[in-house]
Amino acid sequence: MNLILVDPGELRPDGTVVFRGDRRCRHLNQVLGSRPGDTVRLGQVNGPLGTGRLLAISPEEAVLAATWQPDPPALPPVDLILALPRPIMLQRILAQAAAQGVGRIYLINANRVEKSFFQATLLREEAFVEHLRHGLEQAVDTRLPEVTVHPRFRPFVEDVLPGLTPVYAHLLLAHPGAAEWLPAAAPPPLSGRVLLALGPEGGWVDFEVDKFREQKLRPFSMGTRILRLETAVVALLAQLDLLRQWR
Amino acid sequence: MNLILVDPGELRPDGTVVFRGDRRCRHLNQVLGSRPGDTVRLGQVNGPLGTGRLLAISPEEAVLAATWQPDPPALPPVDLILALPRPIMLQRILAQAAAQGVGRIYLINANRVEKSFFQATLLREEAFVEHLRHGLEQAVDTRLPEVTVHPRFRPFVEDVLPGLTPVYAHLLLAHPGAAEWLPAAAPPPLSGRVLLALGPEGGWVDFEVDKFREQKLRPFSMGTRILRLETAVVALLAQLDLLRQWR
Repeated sequence: MNLILVDPGELRPDGTVVFRGDRRCRHLNQVLGSRPGDTVRLGQVNGPLGTGRLLAISPEEAVLAATWQPDPPALPPVDLILALPRPIMLQRILAQAAAQGVGRIYLINANRVEKSFFQATLLREEAFVEHLRHGLEQAVDTRLPEVTVHPRFRPFVEDVLPGLTPVYAHLLLAHPGAAEWLPAAAPPPLSGRVLLALGPEGGWVDFEVDKFREQKLRPFSMGTRILRLETAVVALLAQLDLLRQWR
Repeated sequence: MNLILVDPGELRPDGTVVFRGDRRCRHLNQVLGSRPGDTVRLGQVNGPLGTGRLLAISPEEAVLAATWQPDPPALPPVDLILALPRPIMLQRILAQAAAQGVGRIYLINANRVEKSFFQATLLREEAFVEHLRHGLEQAVDTRLPEVTVHPRFRPFVEDVLPGLTPVYAHLLLAHPGAAEWLPAAAPPPLSGRVLLALGPEGGWVDFEVDKFREQKLRPFSMGTRILRLETAVVALLAQLDLLRQWR
């Protein structure tokens, strides 16, 4: 936890914030061994970064005086469409994607997605938010990715996707068979928002690739090695980041 | 398992190979539901890729006739120096690094490494080899990364490292405080072997950075986000791969 996240509703009118018997209170006590006068890094969910000076601390309660930077961190310039993976992999993907920085995540169905994954507790109870927060706490960011779940492929790609694509400068589809590599599909220096779609283990079926192509998503290949989805997500977010750094 | 690995010693003079009651036999029976006449992808550890045609299969035993490509896959062009992480993270890092392609991995000590990690069963009994093999089976490669363990920092950096560095075209040190970004430290199009060093959670201490600099490792920064080591390894291997693709 390189950052302690605070929900805006937790801020008190006098500028203090109180953690009572929760994970943050335990972190201050047990990991940091914090004492009154210490300062820690704070962040408001979807708001600014800041610092908290400890006014009082006990095993049950920590009281901090918070100060905030004027502006929140920039919105990460990438959004993801992911064919829904199994829950244990989804947890890790969400934490890592939040750490690397992602604006929105569309979890969608596809021919090779196991339908039962849509019934997972992780999705039904929005338990995934915890994993997104872990990613932000790791990376020192406050921009909580918005996650939506789309259990039917066609309504997503035919009805939802056309309304989304106009805001993106680059529409990309990771697809093992594709002829182009990423630097050709998204030439550096990259700028503007990117929408990146990644398929299930086993890949998209032809119908799905055709549907994405109709919406102007550009297929590209990651090479000959077959990577697990969680490795591929981290790898591609890192590569897009590099294409932006290029001058 | 996109590939079934075979040790060269398992090959019989008549060109067949037998899996008896092991993970591979179970995979053929339970995951693939293989029948006589089916073919599967094989790979010899550190040798060529090939295919195996099933001659006979039962729950206890599978007999395959193997044919092999003339040449083994190319040696991956990247080697890693990693400050030893905790065992559960090391497992995932090794599997992912093998999947992405790495030649050698030097697991070393550093000031911020927990010393007890060197006593882990994973290291003592070379149990890590299993995780490397999982990575190769995922990515369809046969080049098993060579892993060595170096429990003392100075003897590694002063005595071992100088003998290693001459073969590399690029010597890189991931270091949060560095002024340069990766595309400046390793300009595209990248060619030749790369040695990449990554530090522990909390980073290298100044003494360690100085020691690596003496050996001509070039520090670079990954940006302002703090990533876990397992995310950083995948991200950097992917970025180096992209720098090679760029023409």
